[in-house]
Amino acid sequence: MQDLFFFFRLICLADAPCQKSCPTSIDIKSFITSISNKNYYGAAKAILSDNPLGLTCGMVCPTSDLCVGGCNLYASEEGPINIGGLQQFAVDIFKAMHIPAIRDPCEDGKILNDKYSSKIALIGCGPASISCGTFLARLGYKDLTIYEKYDYLGGLSSAEIPQYRLPYDTVNFEIELMKDLGVKIISNKPLTIEKDGLTIKKLFDEHGYKAIFVGIGLPNPNIDPIFQDLTTNEGFYTSKNFLPIVARSSKAGMCACKSALPIFTGNVVVLGAGDTAMDCATSAIRCGAKKVFVCFRKGFNQMRAVPEEADVAAEERCEFIPFCSPKQVIIKNGKIISMEFVKTEQTEAGTWIEDPEQIIRLKCSYVISAFGSTLSELPVIQALEPVKLDKYNYPVVDLKTMSTSVPGVFCGGDIANVASTTVESVNDGKTAAWHVHRFIQGDENIPLVPQLPKFYTAIDKVDVSIEICGIKFPNPFGLASAPPVTSGPMIRRCFEAGWGFVVTKTFCLEKDIITNVSPRMARGTTSGHMYGPGQGSFINIELISEKTTEYWLLCIRELKKDFPDRVIIASIMCSFNEQDWTELAKLTEEAGADALELNLSCPHGMGEKGMGLACGQKPELVLNICKWVRAAIKIPFFAKMTPNITNIVEIAQAAKDGGADGVTATNTVSGLMSIRHDGSAWPSVGKNQFTTYGGVSGNAIRPIALRAVSAIARAFPGYPILATGGIDSADAGMQFLYAGASALQVCSAVQNQDFTLIDDYITGLQALLYLKSLDLDGWEGQSPPTPKQYKGKTILVKDLIGSKLPAFGEYKQQRDEITQKYLQEADILDEQFLPEQVRPARQSQKEVPRLVDVRGMAVNKMVEFKQLDPREPAVAIIDDDLCVNCGKCYMTCNDSGYQAIIFDPITHIPYITEDCTGCTLCTSVCPIIDCITMVPRTTVYEIKRGFSKQKVDENTSPLGPIKVSS
Amino acid sequence: MQDLFFFFRLICLADAPCQKSCPTSIDIKSFITSISNKNYYGAAKAILSDNPLGLTCGMVCPTSDLCVGGCNLYASEEGPINIGGLQQFAVDIFKAMHIPAIRDPCEDGKILNDKYSSKIALIGCGPASISCGTFLARLGYKDLTIYEKYDYLGGLSSAEIPQYRLPYDTVNFEIELMKDLGVKIISNKPLTIEKDGLTIKKLFDEHGYKAIFVGIGLPNPNIDPIFQDLTTNEGFYTSKNFLPIVARSSKAGMCACKSALPIFTGNVVVLGAGDTAMDCATSAIRCGAKKVFVCFRKGFNQMRAVPEEADVAAEERCEFIPFCSPKQVIIKNGKIISMEFVKTEQTEAGTWIEDPEQIIRLKCSYVISAFGSTLSELPVIQALEPVKLDKYNYPVVDLKTMSTSVPGVFCGGDIANVASTTVESVNDGKTAAWHVHRFIQGDENIPLVPQLPKFYTAIDKVDVSIEICGIKFPNPFGLASAPPVTSGPMIRRCFEAGWGFVVTKTFCLEKDIITNVSPRMARGTTSGHMYGPGQGSFINIELISEKTTEYWLLCIRELKKDFPDRVIIASIMCSFNEQDWTELAKLTEEAGADALELNLSCPHGMGEKGMGLACGQKPELVLNICKWVRAAIKIPFFAKMTPNITNIVEIAQAAKDGGADGVTATNTVSGLMSIRHDGSAWPSVGKNQFTTYGGVSGNAIRPIALRAVSAIARAFPGYPILATGGIDSADAGMQFLYAGASALQVCSAVQNQDFTLIDDYITGLQALLYLKSLDLDGWEGQSPPTPKQYKGKTILVKDLIGSKLPAFGEYKQQRDEITQKYLQEADILDEQFLPEQVRPARQSQKEVPRLVDVRGMAVNKMVEFKQLDPREPAVAIIDDDLCVNCGKCYMTCNDSGYQAIIFDPITHIPYITEDCTGCTLCTSVCPIIDCITMVPRTTVYEIKRGFSKQKVDENTSPLGPIKVSS
Repeated sequence: MQDLFFFFRLICLADAPCQKSCPTSIDIKSFITSISNKNYYGAAKAILSDNPLGLTCGMVCPTSDLCVGGCNLYASEEGPINIGGLQQFAVDIFKAMHIPAIRDPCEDGKILNDKYSSKIALIGCGPASISCGTFLARLGYKDLTIYEKYDYLGGLSSAEIPQYRLPYDTVNFEIELMKDLGVKIISNKPLTIEKDGLTIKKLFDEHGYKAIFVGIGLPNPNIDPIFQDLTTNEGFYTSKNFLPIVARSSKAGMCACKSALPIFTGNVVVLGAGDTAMDCATSAIRCGAKKVFVCFRKGFNQMRAVPEEADVAAEERCEFIPFCSPKQVIIKNGKIISMEFVKTEQTEAGTWIEDPEQIIRLKCSYVISAFGSTLSELPVIQALEPVKLDKYNYPVVDLKTMSTSVPGVFCGGDIANVASTTVESVNDGKTAAWHVHRFIQGDENIPLVPQLPKFYTAIDKVDVSIEICGIKFPNPFGLASAPPVTSGPMIRRCFEAGWGFVVTKTFCLEKDIITNVSPRMARGTTSGHMYGPGQGSFINIELISEKTTEYWLLCIRELKKDFPDRVIIASIMCSFNEQDWTELAKLTEEAGADALELNLSCPHGMGEKGMGLACGQKPELVLNICKWVRAAIKIPFFAKMTPNITNIVEIAQAAKDGGADGVTATNTVSGLMSIRHDGSAWPSVGKNQFTTYGGVSGNAIRPIALRAVSAIARAFPGYPILATGGIDSADAGMQFLYAGASALQVCSAVQNQDFTLIDDYITGLQALLYLKSLDLDGWEGQSPPTPKQYKGKTILVKDLIGSKLPAFGEYKQQRDEITQKYLQEADILDEQFLPEQVRPARQSQKEVPRLVDVRGMAVNKMVEFKQLDPREPAVAIIDDDLCVNCGKCYMTCNDSGYQAIIFDPITHIPYITEDCTGCTLCTSVCPIIDCITMVPRTTVYEIKRGFSKQKVDENTSPLGPIKVSS
Repeated sequence: MQDLFFFFRLICLADAPCQKSCPTSIDIKSFITSISNKNYYGAAKAILSDNPLGLTCGMVCPTSDLCVGGCNLYASEEGPINIGGLQQFAVDIFKAMHIPAIRDPCEDGKILNDKYSSKIALIGCGPASISCGTFLARLGYKDLTIYEKYDYLGGLSSAEIPQYRLPYDTVNFEIELMKDLGVKIISNKPLTIEKDGLTIKKLFDEHGYKAIFVGIGLPNPNIDPIFQDLTTNEGFYTSKNFLPIVARSSKAGMCACKSALPIFTGNVVVLGAGDTAMDCATSAIRCGAKKVFVCFRKGFNQMRAVPEEADVAAEERCEFIPFCSPKQVIIKNGKIISMEFVKTEQTEAGTWIEDPEQIIRLKCSYVISAFGSTLSELPVIQALEPVKLDKYNYPVVDLKTMSTSVPGVFCGGDIANVASTTVESVNDGKTAAWHVHRFIQGDENIPLVPQLPKFYTAIDKVDVSIEICGIKFPNPFGLASAPPVTSGPMIRRCFEAGWGFVVTKTFCLEKDIITNVSPRMARGTTSGHMYGPGQGSFINIELISEKTTEYWLLCIRELKKDFPDRVIIASIMCSFNEQDWTELAKLTEEAGADALELNLSCPHGMGEKGMGLACGQKPELVLNICKWVRAAIKIPFFAKMTPNITNIVEIAQAAKDGGADGVTATNTVSGLMSIRHDGSAWPSVGKNQFTTYGGVSGNAIRPIALRAVSAIARAFPGYPILATGGIDSADAGMQFLYAGASALQVCSAVQNQDFTLIDDYITGLQALLYLKSLDLDGWEGQSPPTPKQYKGKTILVKDLIGSKLPAFGEYKQQRDEITQKYLQEADILDEQFLPEQVRPARQSQKEVPRLVDVRGMAVNKMVEFKQLDPREPAVAIIDDDLCVNCGKCYMTCNDSGYQAIIFDPITHIPYITEDCTGCTLCTSVCPIIDCITMVPRTTVYEIKRGFSKQKVDENTSPLGPIKVSS
């Protein structure tokens, strides 16, 4: 799945303003973090927990008014994050997983009182009701019924938002998630006093409903009197009849009537400057309109449509005409032939006036009025009785609870007249759900402040606990002995956040106590010279804890008492002295630590005191220390390895021989991060600007740590290894588990963010394990197979025209024309364009693996070089439909490889020749994921060895050919 | 200096379409590469070499029509690169260096024929003449004079482009660079037959000019007859008189007449839809216009202005009125009170018609006509005689040479009637310069295809050669023994590109010859999971060369013959066998290699054969091999060290003792790059998907390599070290030189790009050395001090209002209002706003250091930890005016530090408390460069050690305080 460039820019904020700007308060920081960690389920869970219509909202929210408008990066060079796009991206991937929703597994077994079986009706299956119904079902209500007037579901989302902004499939997905929780839907059942329609009274009196939520939207258009007698026969539409026809005729899934799509042949005038007007304008173009004029009373500066909507209309070449107010429609032979406007202007005082003398006339065959909606149908208004309405026929609503004048009747969405967007309607339904709950359970039993249940699936039931040396770890993620565990209160907060274990900051006997210098940390220079979030590495010259032994012993005692189910591993360090190790190990065991970690590897500072690294690089010292500690205590202990060593297995062997129950691999790698322009290094201390070598941590050392873990796992199968070194996600954690780790220690990733990461790690790991049970074809972890398309490249051009076509400049234009032509001729309601059905849900094909099942799975793939078979060579192939014609593959193959790629100087199309040796450099530098892949070679490859000791003349000189051409 | 986020996205292309789309063919790939390597001089040099008005063009080019429109990333999620912005950025930094231009130092000493002293006149000091004059001066012409009509220089750039798009200072800078080359300018000297004006005839006959370039622009407006008798008294302006008044009144540097700025009090109508109309509209707003209506005859879809221009006008809330054609101006009491238009429309056939019945009226006090320019002044037209003019009074021009009908008279810019942008005018001047050169020297002596000299400064004269072991290296950059030197022809091309030396791919005796497996490379997973350009690391399991000994010996012979000034170091490898090493070393010496590198460190594959790493990890083996080789050959040799070792100094000691003339540090670090979702690693070979540990190279290992180099340099001062491991720029190279390296080997960076990098590395290193001689205050290498501003934050708000104000959401709006108010009240022509003068140029304060002077400079700053003084602690301070209120500092301090930052939940302003221990984590994660810095602590800090063995009660429990609050 494509690693979108913008992931790199995320600043995940404390108390983020984007979240404050979202009506449903989606935890944006959390879901963006999960996306950047490839935990798309975790992201979707965060989104859908707060907003059951998270996919719809990701696609249609006017984000520039909401989250994006609040983004801290607004002031930055590149502007705010595309939050809506990321939201859509994450939920779309979860949708592709085909996994149903369930109630909170922790709540599911509990017995609910009879009130949870009360009948609750929701009228109108639009965003407000779907939201309200979803939250009520999550709360445990069992008898929920949504009544919908039409034969399709989704309300305005389905009927009025065009296919290219919101396909029916998306709406259907969110409805299915609601139905997974048991909500029933009855279609073709309107709220009206006519025929056998529903009324509020009947629902209460005849059907026995205890509570009713009204979310019927606003079904009728606001119409200017000048259009009074016009109909579609003359060419007059309103947004309320035009958009639904277009939707029903073009949306796969809700359509049975493609032939009903209006065919426009001349110019179209759209009246209005709101988002709906923009939808009408762009839809009119798709109905064949020659030109579309969007006419509005005020200027551009007063336009109601958000920029992202207006920009689409502008891009599709609609013409905007400001300062004109509709005057009359000219009809000839029963058809509209033009429309007249009067010029408006704003007086100095700011009021808008019309000048009847200034008449503007536009030739047109169709007029679409998009002046908003209202409720004007009498049978519907009467069906609402006895709910009190205001003078505009809107129910009078208490905005804090969304309750109407009738106890038990609630209301939300457009009909409640506060929401102006889908996301606000969703929030209406969310608010109403809590107050329906209070109404039914009794206000006295339920707090006023909503505590709504989250979104759950079977993934959340996956067990990620693991037993190591007889100790049960509730999950494998813990904090390494490092800055995030500097004090007891920090450990308390990390446990509260959900971490499975901690290794305390290393402490020593009071006689060895240390004092830090400062500054003592640096950002990584291991990948470019980037500032910003997500440092690829840190370097530090921080020593072990500055706090006393007594302090730590008391912390361990208190924490163990308050968090008996979490694991506390105490990290200790002494110099090479039996008495010290014995004393400190015993004290720590007595304090109640579950296990010890012996710090034999701190690479800076301590070594000079004969501690840390100074002990850990010599097998015989490690052996002795482990023997001493083994003799002193009963609880398990781990020896923490240094990677700054020729052969780590030798040291692990010594620890094992000495009686260590396992090892931790690895500590930081010794390095010098950077030297500045004046020759000073950073960090540099004091006036002298002195520096010393520090410990490199983070992703930069992950290859080294993975090597260490797997080397030890290969040498001692099953021997417990606590892994650390670049674990920054469930995905990375999984790699370490495969390599043989039993549990996972984190430090740098927390330094880059905060303790809340644990939620992402746990859901991420659960999802990776669960998806294994589904046997998904072509998925890589949580990433579905790379689609052969991205923005501007939706159709496989090569298939269409039988030859390659580049993707830049004029070629891009050609591609666009070819795909547009194809789409115009194609039946877009044809089966090939139908979305995959999200139900029935996918079933597990096998048991969900446990951590012990995956631990060490990769180890048997790691062999000596000589076991690799050079007789099974690979070659690269390029996917033309993904290629952006950048030439990176050609450049690296030419100057760093085997000159096996030809790059067409005009079209910039690369071709791989028979000379390809499978070196894989092109694949490594290609900026487009899965564009270049390696496949087994099918032809014979003869190695170009130059020549042997034969006679050499000028013509066979190795430099000959290039010499001539260069 | 800010590391802009977008640098990360660069794909530097082979044969880039952006470059093809630039009229002056700027080498965009090259300059973007240099920017990303912090080599701003190199970038500016590339830009100014092709375009002497590179700064102006970076600011005003309609890039969406040009380079940006051609960008390969157009099809990508985030869209094309902001090429214009990067161009401006790089040249702006070079401008701040205050370094004058010189002629090509290699050409400067040569004696030029008399023709180079011919008098050449250039008329009109606008972009075309500045470009033409610059290139002629670079070619060596000594008597160049520009005649300018006005008292200010720059032509349209100064007179018509507003201050906020192109300050006078920019234009002046480019003129100064031209003057540095000896071009003279005479002001107040127009082309006209009036008074003592210039004429073509006079220049030839009276003044003795041999060639003339006419670049006078188009001085007169196109005016609709309805405006015939209107003047500024009534409120009527044209772009040709409005914009120059505004420019002269608002541009620092050209102004003496602030009071002449028109003060608009009512509405302003701007006529036209080109870029100039947009400049008029936005300028009118700055002159106080209440509302600005931009009125144009056609629709938005036919607008001429590029989107970036129109968007600015829209953002500044100008109102656009399409489909209206000017009809008449209504005057009352001698002032414009309104303007009438007729409605236009496009017929089905596509022709535009006006409907005289549809009248639109706009109240306004001012009308600015921006309908383009022409040449209509008779005295000017006559002064051009005998140059043949066409019916529009434009000279008839041969577009290939820019010559007119009169031999020796050339022409360019607007007057030549082909250029419609500044950059096209620049190219006119560039083309004309070459053909003036041919005209003067005689066509038979000068080729037809232009070969124009580049831009040079004193930086290009800096000597970067270094002598190592008696061998002279022309520059310190060479290719490491790795994929970029897989064959002889590749080495030939790398020498042609300019690399100083190569180490050949390692070869062995024919009996040991190897065969590679494939795939055998991988991109790094050491920094996020990014695809795309600029991999932070590679891993490889490629072995040494597959080619024969004979092949390499012949390559060395041929290359040495063809490139006697370059250094060839042959890399060889044998197993631990005296006879083999002796034989191979002798053969290689005989072939003519300048030196040998003994590969004692290849970390994969070879070790299993008892070669490479297997020898390099044991001091006694290294000692013996070096002794054998020393005995066998006379030429110098280097032992290549492995970093996969406990103590690298021990191995270096052995090499030194064995007689090695130096060492190479270091080879790749052994690692496992990544394990995939199914438990297989990458690269994995064949059906079994087997893998083995590979060698990690690139930036990720830079801290390890820097440590190795500096450790060896500390142990053996002055001992030659060839450094390798993450050298990807002059900046990184400098760090290695400081750490003690003598020369620099590159591999991964070339894999990420190609051989052309060497140009960037050399100019980058030259610039770093040269800038040292200037003693620039606050600069870090080529980066000037971080300015306290970025987009949307130009003024120090804290200074203005005396308190902190956040930079997001509504606060940002407040900030903007405060700064706007400040700017309105301030005199923006006041001294405080004046740009720094770029001349006189900065003078070197001391000798430019040579490489030997900087080598090892940092080594004496590296000390044992115990020499670092904990009594000189630092604390963090936050610069409020740079802070974007993201809270990253707070998050890391809270969960990974010392809880010493308070984060205001409403304003998101962070405050650092007395608890700060100077750990430096906040500085490390802050996304804004120089926003958080470390300063010496001025108060006493007491270490929080918890407590000692005193009695503990509940109240003093270490967990107490947090327990209560959490």
